[in-house]
Amino acid sequence: MKIVYYAPEGRPEPWLEELAKHLPQAQLRVWTEADQQAADYAVVWKPPLPLLRLPGLKAAFNLGAGVDGILQHGAQLPPGLPIVRLDDAGMGEQMVEYASWAVLAYFRRFDDYARQQQQAQWRFLKPYPKREFTVGILGMGVLGRQIAAGLRQFGFPVNGWSRSRKDIEGVQCFAGDDELDGFLRASRVLVCILPLTAATTGILNRANLEKLPAGAFVINIARGPHLVEDDLLALVQNGHIAGATLDVAQQEPLPASHPFWREPRITITPHVAAVTLRPISIEQIAGKIRMLERGEPIAGVVDRSLGY
Amino acid sequence: MKIVYYAPEGRPEPWLEELAKHLPQAQLRVWTEADQQAADYAVVWKPPLPLLRLPGLKAAFNLGAGVDGILQHGAQLPPGLPIVRLDDAGMGEQMVEYASWAVLAYFRRFDDYARQQQQAQWRFLKPYPKREFTVGILGMGVLGRQIAAGLRQFGFPVNGWSRSRKDIEGVQCFAGDDELDGFLRASRVLVCILPLTAATTGILNRANLEKLPAGAFVINIARGPHLVEDDLLALVQNGHIAGATLDVAQQEPLPASHPFWREPRITITPHVAAVTLRPISIEQIAGKIRMLERGEPIAGVVDRSLGY
Repeated sequence: MKIVYYAPEGRPEPWLEELAKHLPQAQLRVWTEADQQAADYAVVWKPPLPLLRLPGLKAAFNLGAGVDGILQHGAQLPPGLPIVRLDDAGMGEQMVEYASWAVLAYFRRFDDYARQQQQAQWRFLKPYPKREFTVGILGMGVLGRQIAAGLRQFGFPVNGWSRSRKDIEGVQCFAGDDELDGFLRASRVLVCILPLTAATTGILNRANLEKLPAGAFVINIARGPHLVEDDLLALVQNGHIAGATLDVAQQEPLPASHPFWREPRITITPHVAAVTLRPISIEQIAGKIRMLERGEPIAGVVDRSLGY
Repeated sequence: MKIVYYAPEGRPEPWLEELAKHLPQAQLRVWTEADQQAADYAVVWKPPLPLLRLPGLKAAFNLGAGVDGILQHGAQLPPGLPIVRLDDAGMGEQMVEYASWAVLAYFRRFDDYARQQQQAQWRFLKPYPKREFTVGILGMGVLGRQIAAGLRQFGFPVNGWSRSRKDIEGVQCFAGDDELDGFLRASRVLVCILPLTAATTGILNRANLEKLPAGAFVINIARGPHLVEDDLLALVQNGHIAGATLDVAQQEPLPASHPFWREPRITITPHVAAVTLRPISIEQIAGKIRMLERGEPIAGVVDRSLGY
């Protein structure tokens, strides 16, 4: 069995070693531009198209939950090639940590206290009632559901929105375009964890963000293109949005000249909300490769018509 | 039944209304300096000594968990007067929120990312392994145990230290002076939630803070006098302590000239980690007054020899 590995950044050796540990019989190689040799499986992050067109390829495993880096190739992708996303693989836990930290920071007004510290100002601020601090989670897949459960532990009211209706205990679930307005109007904090598809690109635009209640907060831990950055900036500057925590950007790295860096109500982290954890991810991928070799169905195969 | 109320700050009316709701037969009054009339119960925060010596007083209820504001009167307090602390009363939940936010901020390096944002710097920092990010909780009373449980939910290794040995599932418990060193040496993050007593005043001093591993973090959500402020500042400046989050200070409000305000590795909040919630606190106190009137024993009576 032949496996090619590719990622635009980072050393490939530790990934090959981890693959070899789980699949000792496999022939492993790092894909490079000239490589047109046959392979059975590809383990990849943001792969160039030629890699995905290698002869013999039975499946491409994405080293992340979001497969937009593969599906961007669109109709040029081999039609029958299964694209497989990571299922959780430790990312859920990290997303819960990130969302808990960001939501608690806003709920407990630690952002306001940080600004007061810059003025050496010791001043008590009235706490927000928790029952009015509804968190709306845009995207209720594997990760969104874990974030919902984590925030429920803290006692926040949690709503969820997704394309198709979900039924999740303790979470008021909204579905489809018709219910997006009602979902947004009820969200004091909006957490975006959607897959990036044609339908979700630019969903965090002025028209939608204005539907959030005045003084709402926005947390984007999905993809930069979900957000229309100028729209957010205008709404932060006019006060409708009281704060935003963004882990992703249209252009990454976020250029040093970007106004987000210097806006005191915007917190930037450099795409670290959930990193791919090597051991657990490769164990999951190796397990799926063994299942495919035995002719068994696997979870996490992307529906290209939906884009995730 | 006569009840006096006193707090140095804030409007008394909402507290009297809440008391009247639960104890409609009681005669309620706000204590003022000239008042030497008899009372059955006192509901107080930081009361002057004369209040506690009113004739007829059967118990003094403290509007907080820490009773140092009453016990500071020492031997001048009437010897037999029961001093009653608040038991949780919604403070546990707030303390779990605060500690979760502060520990997650350090664990996920959001403090480093905030400093990078000031330089418009988008740079991934190596995550800390969670199994090495042990949180040590100084003080395992009602609040400390809840903080321990909250941090266990996130998967942090949690140790606890207290005067007398506790047995808490999932928490390695240290006890007494002999085991303080071992506890400190194992704490990557130190959370102080001790009562303030003669034995704990100044416990966060240079000798003890130096026992924390290099790069440790300190979170003080107890009382300002637990911390020797100059000692912490020196250890932050020499790098042994990588960051501190302080909700309390020796002098509150923290003077504008205090160096903590301007130290980038110190986060200051103005004694907001857990505020006394009026409805739940008065409900608890009213319930205990009814129990005392029926001659029943109540929880939360302070052991003056221990100071909590």
